[in-house]
Amino acid sequence: MSASGLPFDDFRTLLKNLPGPNAQVVDMARERDSQLTKPPGALGRLEEIAFWLAAWTGRKPAVTRPLVAIFAGNHGVTNKGVSPFPPSVTAQMVENFAAGGAAINQICVAYDLGLKVFDLALELPTADITEEAALDEQACAATMAFGMEAIAGGTDLLCIGEMGIGNTTIASAIYYGLYGGTAEEWVGPGTGAQGEGLQRKIDAVQQAVDLHKDHLNDPLELLRRLGGREIAAMAGAILAARVEGIPVIIDGFVATAAAAVLHAANPKALDHCMIGHVSAEPAHMKVIENLGKTPLLALGMRLGEGTGAALAAGIVKAAAQCHSGMATFEQAGVSDKD
Amino acid sequence: MSASGLPFDDFRTLLKNLPGPNAQVVDMARERDSQLTKPPGALGRLEEIAFWLAAWTGRKPAVTRPLVAIFAGNHGVTNKGVSPFPPSVTAQMVENFAAGGAAINQICVAYDLGLKVFDLALELPTADITEEAALDEQACAATMAFGMEAIAGGTDLLCIGEMGIGNTTIASAIYYGLYGGTAEEWVGPGTGAQGEGLQRKIDAVQQAVDLHKDHLNDPLELLRRLGGREIAAMAGAILAARVEGIPVIIDGFVATAAAAVLHAANPKALDHCMIGHVSAEPAHMKVIENLGKTPLLALGMRLGEGTGAALAAGIVKAAAQCHSGMATFEQAGVSDKD
Repeated sequence: MSASGLPFDDFRTLLKNLPGPNAQVVDMARERDSQLTKPPGALGRLEEIAFWLAAWTGRKPAVTRPLVAIFAGNHGVTNKGVSPFPPSVTAQMVENFAAGGAAINQICVAYDLGLKVFDLALELPTADITEEAALDEQACAATMAFGMEAIAGGTDLLCIGEMGIGNTTIASAIYYGLYGGTAEEWVGPGTGAQGEGLQRKIDAVQQAVDLHKDHLNDPLELLRRLGGREIAAMAGAILAARVEGIPVIIDGFVATAAAAVLHAANPKALDHCMIGHVSAEPAHMKVIENLGKTPLLALGMRLGEGTGAALAAGIVKAAAQCHSGMATFEQAGVSDKD
Repeated sequence: MSASGLPFDDFRTLLKNLPGPNAQVVDMARERDSQLTKPPGALGRLEEIAFWLAAWTGRKPAVTRPLVAIFAGNHGVTNKGVSPFPPSVTAQMVENFAAGGAAINQICVAYDLGLKVFDLALELPTADITEEAALDEQACAATMAFGMEAIAGGTDLLCIGEMGIGNTTIASAIYYGLYGGTAEEWVGPGTGAQGEGLQRKIDAVQQAVDLHKDHLNDPLELLRRLGGREIAAMAGAILAARVEGIPVIIDGFVATAAAAVLHAANPKALDHCMIGHVSAEPAHMKVIENLGKTPLLALGMRLGEGTGAALAAGIVKAAAQCHSGMATFEQAGVSDKD
């Protein structure tokens, strides 16, 4: 953070000066791919993934230290009865992550992915967004900065996930604030809201966006008013990954909200990111389309925790292995096309 | 093979008497799933996969010995210039599998899958289907029986793949023979046929189905006339897996042809099978719909070798790990829904 400027200044500067892909390394990867023992293009999206790894790491495609980072936060808007689960579940699930009992732990075991969980002041829920801004500017910027530091331990493939009772309401408010339309079209069942519970979510999203509507043109201002701590931290982590040359896999409906804020600030901000899985949460696909992305997987999941991103990381690992491990036509003595 | 009957008799009997799923074990898996630390249904298709494993293995969902079986064959129809690659590439690629240099080897490394390659008399291509039946009844039945034996070494998740220059032409002929329509709609580029090469494929498929058209109502007769050795062996392997209680993941456009023959003989014959990946080969999705299936993955691949099935096996392993490894609400001390 610059000592003299306003809290968001450094992020605004960073968002205007994002590093680009390494075209030369991509060309080298394409050249190698053309010599591998398969018809050209036959590995489809696995080939694109290899080139994407090359573009953003600036090295030969490889995944040696994949990491799932889960950011957990609590939300004052749960006072409005937007979730069928009590907010105490956020901390309980963080304990479950630590004990190895959650779904994400199993996927990390299956694919040998590292896992780090960042607990963002769970005892201090953000303010209720239907009544005031979730965070003040300093707290939001500090949380983004924390998210940037969170990945400093090193990784070459970052999966971004979250946990936070009430945070599908937060994500829906962000999408409604960014994209307009109606509150209904951005709100879904989340962990299982239906009937009156679903209507309470819709009402909360409507009230929140109505309250803050004069301040939503600036994406970072929108983030602090409507977002939670885990959203701000994920935004920071995505930015830090860009600076550090780390490809990112975004998880589901909530994690994508952090990505969408950055995309609104700079349409190139997510060029190093892939959407791992399209959620069963109804509005997720529309958001992904707004970001110009195609999700890697569509398995009907709606859990968060980074599970969709982690499953996608399994595919990315296989793609890197194909690129690096396959024999060339010459090495294998296989006849190329006529 | 029964000593007295005709070669196909045992397969006809088997196809009429297929074992069904184990409903009791599925109920147990559903009961456990309802207690796991996640909202009900939040793991989407991963939950369905766990129940599918339970249904067909008759045990708690687990994947401990996954196996990719590749069946390789050669085809007389390559004389008609249907592939841009020479038929010698089939044996060269079998060598590449043995040396660990192919794409499928890398995916097996990434997900710790076993790999077995079955070379089906590559020095004896089947007859050119545009001129005569590919195989006589005895050879076809013997190859199916070989396919049944191929999986005898034991596995609890079987991925079915293939290699054979010219075999997308064979698969297209099988689909045209089974489903009608026009030859064009079942033929695609395969390893890369285009222009005149693609037209030669269409012409070959048309000629083959015209030649054998009075004998295509019986799926096993269609198989021996239009199919190759690897198709017959894959059909046998799928049947054997059903008998042995082994769930099967079918690979792409060509492997699905073996499955489609069985489905035509008995619509329940593929209940223990999943389609791993929808191929970029244009007609594959229509075939999958005809089989009443939804592919697990859509990654734009069109390589065969079991690559799509093996990638799907990575997801299946994660699904089994989630089901078996996750904590229950009670174990984790997590509050269930209000």
